[in-house]
Amino acid sequence: MSEFFKTVPVVKYEGADSSNPFAFKHYDANKMLMGKTMAEHLRVAVCYWHTFCWQGSDVFGANTFDRPWSKAASEMEAAKLKTDAAFEFFTKLGVPYYSFHDVDVSPEGRSIKEYINNFAQMVDVLQAKQEATGIKLLWGTANAFSNPRYMSGAASNPNPEIFAYAATQVFHAMNATKALKGENYVLWGGREGYETLLNTDLKRERAQLGRFMQMVVEHKYKIGFEGTLLIEPKPAEPTKHQYDYDTATVYGFLKEFGLEKEIKVNIEANHATLAGHSFHHEIATACSLGILGSVDANQGDAQLGWDTDQFPTSVEEYTLVTYEILKSGGFKTGGYMFDTKLRRQSMDLEDLFHGHIGAMDTLALSLERAVKMIEDEKLANIVDQRYAKWNDSLGADILAGKHTLQDLAEYAEKNNIDPQPVSGRQEMLENMVNGYIFK
Amino acid sequence: MSEFFKTVPVVKYEGADSSNPFAFKHYDANKMLMGKTMAEHLRVAVCYWHTFCWQGSDVFGANTFDRPWSKAASEMEAAKLKTDAAFEFFTKLGVPYYSFHDVDVSPEGRSIKEYINNFAQMVDVLQAKQEATGIKLLWGTANAFSNPRYMSGAASNPNPEIFAYAATQVFHAMNATKALKGENYVLWGGREGYETLLNTDLKRERAQLGRFMQMVVEHKYKIGFEGTLLIEPKPAEPTKHQYDYDTATVYGFLKEFGLEKEIKVNIEANHATLAGHSFHHEIATACSLGILGSVDANQGDAQLGWDTDQFPTSVEEYTLVTYEILKSGGFKTGGYMFDTKLRRQSMDLEDLFHGHIGAMDTLALSLERAVKMIEDEKLANIVDQRYAKWNDSLGADILAGKHTLQDLAEYAEKNNIDPQPVSGRQEMLENMVNGYIFK
Amino acid sequence: MSEFFKTVPVVKYEGADSSNPFAFKHYDANKMLMGKTMAEHLRVAVCYWHTFCWQGSDVFGANTFDRPWSKAASEMEAAKLKTDAAFEFFTKLGVPYYSFHDVDVSPEGRSIKEYINNFAQMVDVLQAKQEATGIKLLWGTANAFSNPRYMSGAASNPNPEIFAYAATQVFHAMNATKALKGENYVLWGGREGYETLLNTDLKRERAQLGRFMQMVVEHKYKIGFEGTLLIEPKPAEPTKHQYDYDTATVYGFLKEFGLEKEIKVNIEANHATLAGHSFHHEIATACSLGILGSVDANQGDAQLGWDTDQFPTSVEEYTLVTYEILKSGGFKTGGYMFDTKLRRQSMDLEDLFHGHIGAMDTLALSLERAVKMIEDEKLANIVDQRYAKWNDSLGADILAGKHTLQDLAEYAEKNNIDPQPVSGRQEMLENMVNGYIFK
Amino acid sequence: MSEFFKTVPVVKYEGADSSNPFAFKHYDANKMLMGKTMAEHLRVAVCYWHTFCWQGSDVFGANTFDRPWSKAASEMEAAKLKTDAAFEFFTKLGVPYYSFHDVDVSPEGRSIKEYINNFAQMVDVLQAKQEATGIKLLWGTANAFSNPRYMSGAASNPNPEIFAYAATQVFHAMNATKALKGENYVLWGGREGYETLLNTDLKRERAQLGRFMQMVVEHKYKIGFEGTLLIEPKPAEPTKHQYDYDTATVYGFLKEFGLEKEIKVNIEANHATLAGHSFHHEIATACSLGILGSVDANQGDAQLGWDTDQFPTSVEEYTLVTYEILKSGGFKTGGYMFDTKLRRQSMDLEDLFHGHIGAMDTLALSLERAVKMIEDEKLANIVDQRYAKWNDSLGADILAGKHTLQDLAEYAEKNNIDPQPVSGRQEMLENMVNGYIFK
Repeated sequence: MSEFFKTVPVVKYEGADSSNPFAFKHYDANKMLMGKTMAEHLRVAVCYWHTFCWQGSDVFGANTFDRPWSKAASEMEAAKLKTDAAFEFFTKLGVPYYSFHDVDVSPEGRSIKEYINNFAQMVDVLQAKQEATGIKLLWGTANAFSNPRYMSGAASNPNPEIFAYAATQVFHAMNATKALKGENYVLWGGREGYETLLNTDLKRERAQLGRFMQMVVEHKYKIGFEGTLLIEPKPAEPTKHQYDYDTATVYGFLKEFGLEKEIKVNIEANHATLAGHSFHHEIATACSLGILGSVDANQGDAQLGWDTDQFPTSVEEYTLVTYEILKSGGFKTGGYMFDTKLRRQSMDLEDLFHGHIGAMDTLALSLERAVKMIEDEKLANIVDQRYAKWNDSLGADILAGKHTLQDLAEYAEKNNIDPQPVSGRQEMLENMVNGYIFK
Repeated sequence: MSEFFKTVPVVKYEGADSSNPFAFKHYDANKMLMGKTMAEHLRVAVCYWHTFCWQGSDVFGANTFDRPWSKAASEMEAAKLKTDAAFEFFTKLGVPYYSFHDVDVSPEGRSIKEYINNFAQMVDVLQAKQEATGIKLLWGTANAFSNPRYMSGAASNPNPEIFAYAATQVFHAMNATKALKGENYVLWGGREGYETLLNTDLKRERAQLGRFMQMVVEHKYKIGFEGTLLIEPKPAEPTKHQYDYDTATVYGFLKEFGLEKEIKVNIEANHATLAGHSFHHEIATACSLGILGSVDANQGDAQLGWDTDQFPTSVEEYTLVTYEILKSGGFKTGGYMFDTKLRRQSMDLEDLFHGHIGAMDTLALSLERAVKMIEDEKLANIVDQRYAKWNDSLGADILAGKHTLQDLAEYAEKNNIDPQPVSGRQEMLENMVNGYIFK
Repeated sequence: MSEFFKTVPVVKYEGADSSNPFAFKHYDANKMLMGKTMAEHLRVAVCYWHTFCWQGSDVFGANTFDRPWSKAASEMEAAKLKTDAAFEFFTKLGVPYYSFHDVDVSPEGRSIKEYINNFAQMVDVLQAKQEATGIKLLWGTANAFSNPRYMSGAASNPNPEIFAYAATQVFHAMNATKALKGENYVLWGGREGYETLLNTDLKRERAQLGRFMQMVVEHKYKIGFEGTLLIEPKPAEPTKHQYDYDTATVYGFLKEFGLEKEIKVNIEANHATLAGHSFHHEIATACSLGILGSVDANQGDAQLGWDTDQFPTSVEEYTLVTYEILKSGGFKTGGYMFDTKLRRQSMDLEDLFHGHIGAMDTLALSLERAVKMIEDEKLANIVDQRYAKWNDSLGADILAGKHTLQDLAEYAEKNNIDPQPVSGRQEMLENMVNGYIFK
Repeated sequence: MSEFFKTVPVVKYEGADSSNPFAFKHYDANKMLMGKTMAEHLRVAVCYWHTFCWQGSDVFGANTFDRPWSKAASEMEAAKLKTDAAFEFFTKLGVPYYSFHDVDVSPEGRSIKEYINNFAQMVDVLQAKQEATGIKLLWGTANAFSNPRYMSGAASNPNPEIFAYAATQVFHAMNATKALKGENYVLWGGREGYETLLNTDLKRERAQLGRFMQMVVEHKYKIGFEGTLLIEPKPAEPTKHQYDYDTATVYGFLKEFGLEKEIKVNIEANHATLAGHSFHHEIATACSLGILGSVDANQGDAQLGWDTDQFPTSVEEYTLVTYEILKSGGFKTGGYMFDTKLRRQSMDLEDLFHGHIGAMDTLALSLERAVKMIEDEKLANIVDQRYAKWNDSLGADILAGKHTLQDLAEYAEKNNIDPQPVSGRQEMLENMVNGYIFK
């Protein structure tokens, strides 16, 4: 087995003063914070698709990457070389987890039978790699959007045979995820959406999707998969409108099909911003609804209207997000998965390390700051204090359902109430947050 | 009673060749289409706030409008003059409906008691006006967002006394709407949202809102109001994030609090586009979920990021929207309510007529085209045909819950299925739509 | 020579009542309007790249189109088959013009010498095709953005050898355009922009671009090319920021390098909207600056943040745009070039016809309406009247430079002036426009 | 003279460990960096309008602020009280500069004569205040957009009398700025733009604006004002489209009217993002064109489509911006002017301090990091190295105009050149920047 990343050593923590671009300045896996190591808090994972499959093309240009593992005598040989590269990379980077789609790791083949056969072989290869390295699977998923058969959706396709094809892939991908001890299984509705309402029956497609999700839940119990099922919201792209638009939309869908206790969300930073929300908003919303599962840790470009999947660099943004996650108890089966890709001009193998090292340092910096915010309790106390009146009898009775509109109207008139507004102190709170980030 | 709009006669239908700017070219109230008059289909309403209350200020500039009805010896006198102007306008324009907020028609006063007293008097004035003119109330609502006490929300306010204040207004506004035979009651969450997550408890505020809505439903039954309750989604503005973001979000909220059969949505065109959706999308989504109630008929500016509330002029857009509404059975208690305001430079009284006449002609043109689309059935047939395979046994059995993932995987493997994609014919369908619009 | 589009006959004008999807309902090439035929006004062109080269892939999925002309023994054979398909398509559609990039019509080859040689051969093939069919070239251009060598720009590349490579392509593409009697030569700055300011020297890259454009102008005169040189603005995509952001930006660039009389703009509808402008705005701005050259006639999606290049369907939008173009004298060497691509699901050869037929009918409808607006003169008169005071002495003297700030301040104070605002009549004007569109 | 901000002491630098909300943690006015004090680098200014004039209203709600200085027997009395409050605030905050519009400091009056008279009196008051406190004027400007007379623009108004009115205000505001030793004079084109193209003559309005700017330049020389003239770009709001859209647009305008050496730009962070640019981009563009004058230091909301004018809190953003400014030599007459307003819920006087203290600490943190980036030179060296080949003969000759397209094509063909792309190292550079920010 040849070494692919020859110029890059195992990446180590060297502290903030290091000028070694291939060292961590802040990510110190074993550093203890609030009773857990940094690695246990962050649960970082590398993605297979952007990191090992994407070749650097975009809509206006051809591949700029020339990956040595893509050159092999056969597709299966190339798939195996790719696992060599991937596990060498995971190991050198020192990440505990990875994630994949079925067709990232295994050639699709020319028929569904070939697909099944190829995938079975590659699961064995991955299993051996995991055992040899100790790297674990954060989540698996199936790609039911790239093949032309899925151009009009998978579960929401006008053709039930295509629904069946997608079901087959998800069946095998769930089984593979279980076999590889994956901690979650993700469903991203790739092309579950529409291009034009003119040819679309929204109600019918929703029913198809609802049934598909129920089958996934049933299968989870049937095979005894103990991980978490996750839906990943995205508002658009590749379709004009994706059905899993954002967290609130997914929540309504889960409620309709009785799935709100069975499926959580996998929130991607860049999908949040494409949906017109801050990343912080999507995380806080999922936490407040009790459905936060995992995070695709990346970063969009505030001026661009498509999914740029950049490596996260904003400590200002990730501190708030990590604070929210810690407040709600931290990750259980989820983690920070890098759904990140190099810029197309970053064509060298070394650039893969630059991207991930910077991202891990960003998360480490953010975690340390969020921990301080939790431990100080000042922010939380200010919020609790703001709502304190809801613990008094009027507030408590309202929430307990003891009042009617008429009661309250009579109370208000009788007492001629005149409640006064109170400063929200936004600027002071923003200063406090910067106090934690830049102390 | 003096005449306010002296230069404008009663607006009549004169046909497409008329060059009279104060005549309808296309809105012919009594024209029969699909068994109903145009007026019965469109159920047009004029709004009180933009039309009679707004004075032409914006964030960067002072009032440009100089409305004769705003000059009076007292606030109550001015409120009465305003009803004179409003009903003169409704009558000259020939619209069947209007809509209002409590404080549009009645001065807030200096205390809650004064508010209640003023409003009771003005409801009598409106009742007399309605009887005298035959103009009806499409919907009433309460303004729980303009007064400083609501700066941090009404139902979602950190102070339960402010919740009680809002409950008082809604109590009286619902009662007034019933007294005036209003056909719907609308709840727009003005400042139900947040400015910063740093001082906000999303879960708690959601519970407050949920309880508020349940109280509204209980009160509806208590007083025997037979109209429809409506929530109006908006993604942001005035707050950073509004809780009733869009139709899908409202649906999830209704499901959580068991309200999905009690409350429908009032969709505003400009709110749809601010939420990153097409107006068509929001309407189609609400229809598919069975919760379309009414429409705020206006138009945004595709380049501007705030609510411009322009008069609707796009027949291309309104034809698709009207087609969707007709497909789902047409308006029941809802209608096309003009939540529209003049551009600030359109300072003359006559401009109020120009805006509304153009809007009504736009709706009339759109209705005629949508009716043709319905009657021809070609579009609907193409959509049905596209999903025809779901009526066969495989599709029907999947939707009936007779298949598991494993079944489908075995079926797919055994038959080595290879379903092929089929053209979605988007361009042909777009041509067909233009065929209806420009024939 | 085999027929590629066997199921589609020559497309003819059949009038608005035709239900034949392969007939024009409104585009009647020889219809006379304002002294010219419809064809002479619109000067419609089909693009080579989307229509014959794109295979239906997107960022998330593989090719869905299976074009018969892409299957051949060699690249040059395929290129020749493609010309057969293209000219069959042009002829059946009845368009007078087409447009191409060098590498659309000719394989790049494995070296610059092969590139030059292939291109020379293909120019001969195209010349023969043009002669045989009477189809003309609206414009040629060079693709200096798809090849990986251009990943960091062409003229703005950090490597002057890559500048020289681009210069070579433009040299040959300009010569080819002249040989093929092309009426314009277009420069689209594909990757002339930046991905990150961190590695970019804006001033230097601007100087490189400026010199490149000067060389293009010099070469034009040297070879006696009599067509128009055009720059096509786009704000972003593929780069984070494109230097030719919009018309106003290009104008500043032309002024800096003394090129404002030598180069005009080719405005694309979808690029306008990506830049945050209405398409109408970009056209009106170019007309007001005297630099409108040609138009890429397509349509974006108001909710999507990337270049969707859809076929134009909005008569409402194109009527205003065509009115603006007619007001400024109509196209000279430019025309409406369809930089349009099918939706990825529209995979059939017939869909190419649906897209173009709908687009041509949209332009025809728009032209007829714009002509009415011109001929009636009402709109223009209202605008002239609005500024009439500028023809009086005060206004004329100000514009003639006869006043200083101080003069005016003294005049204002002395006369205690109190000029009053006048209604802008926006709603009435919008109604008038709809009067023309839907009469 | 009464004290307005009784609960707030003079704000001092107490260092990062201070938990005093009314102390600076990072802004240490006299700290030396690169040979200047922090105060000399940053040249911070407080704005008069948002800070002392705005009362907390928005489009959907009434005033929430209840400022003690707004209560006085007359408008002139209130204006004088406001100066007391303002200079108390400046002094307690310890800022060297402030900025104002004419009508911020002086009542408009009921006629142009009253305006002139009031303003003259208030300039004397301000002069006395400046002398008493040592606070200086960063820039003055005239508000030619709030009064209804300006609803259709000032210089671009269809009525030349309104042009003359604006000229009068600018005349007096420039004279006042000179009298008060202001270091710059700013022109923000408030309503210089259009609401609808249907009633607008772009070419004519541009000519009006061009002449106005020339008059301003002429007046500057006439009165011997030695400060800098600045135009402030903004893309939209209040108008649909503002003529001073962004820096590149203003540059084209300056070139057209021969003003590029006379007027620079005042870039506002939030205007940059509304224009679809990063703030960093606008600053870098202005630096590369040699027209950066000053900065309105605020921050927008990435999800909101209007000017929120928030206090700057992002050290990540301001570090890059400050680096760019330092690279180009630092501020000359310009500075960081806080065009910032409190959130409407931040209704207390103390909140004014929270906002400004956080903003000044943000700038201080950013300056320290930017200085490190400059002093290390690593980033600059990487950029220089990237373009190094342009210093060789081929590159130098191209830029010197010694090559034609044909030369280069012959050179390329003869040498069969095949230049290869090189990694742009974006991720590594982003890591380096974070290395400076979070060391």
